[in-house]
Amino acid sequence: MRRHIATVSATTLLGLACATGVAEAQPASLYAPSAMVLTVAQGEDPATVVRASTVSCAPTAQGTHPDPQAACAALAAAAGTLDTLLASPDSNRACPMHYDPVTVTADGVWQGSRISWKHTFSNACVMSVTFNGNPLFAF
Amino acid sequence: MRRHIATVSATTLLGLACATGVAEAQPASLYAPSAMVLTVAQGEDPATVVRASTVSCAPTAQGTHPDPQAACAALAAAAGTLDTLLASPDSNRACPMHYDPVTVTADGVWQGSRISWKHTFSNACVMSVTFNGNPLFAF
Repeated sequence: MRRHIATVSATTLLGLACATGVAEAQPASLYAPSAMVLTVAQGEDPATVVRASTVSCAPTAQGTHPDPQAACAALAAAAGTLDTLLASPDSNRACPMHYDPVTVTADGVWQGSRISWKHTFSNACVMSVTFNGNPLFAF
Repeated sequence: MRRHIATVSATTLLGLACATGVAEAQPASLYAPSAMVLTVAQGEDPATVVRASTVSCAPTAQGTHPDPQAACAALAAAAGTLDTLLASPDSNRACPMHYDPVTVTADGVWQGSRISWKHTFSNACVMSVTFNGNPLFAF
């Protein structure tokens, strides 16, 4: 409801701004926006996406991600530097060495700053072991 | 609920795939994913985003966009070629000619194909006139 009111008033402001010749993009809320699209694609080129999920973190965690709260916590822990997701693989698991690449992407906004992140794993097992239970791409 | 079951079974498949050495990324549903993050930023460089919105279109329209159904209809009408959003400006409205750029972006997946689209308008009035009531960036 609050979001709706904010949207309406932003639109009104836009209208007024146009009328007076002072046009500015107005933030719709006090929160810096955090909204991401996460994808998992088969192959090195992420042109063909097999799974995708959205997550929005401010003011509340929501999205088509099965656990938006956990995804937002994972994003907050990475603090916008998604390479940190690759830093703690499960050292107790082994993977076959065959090459059947899986590419994950994260695009959008984290606390007002644009993010465009991509990583290719040599196969899905390597992806699973590398993420090591991190919920961000668990969809 | 159905989504959750699909997620769990995909995870189970992943586990099995790792165990047997056959690792594949499995689609979580029969629908090609359509999920986008839309942003509006002040300036030419969209590094600082003032508004962001998510929309997911399959199997149902949802997201933080104030009207996900209208946004999905607009995306379907554009058929993944978002430059068509610029094709029908309102010819009955005039805008001041000052330069206070607003940049809009759309990143994500449309029916399984990745999309990364960006356009800079010279000011917010020009943006409003160009979109001409299109609901996609009305948030």
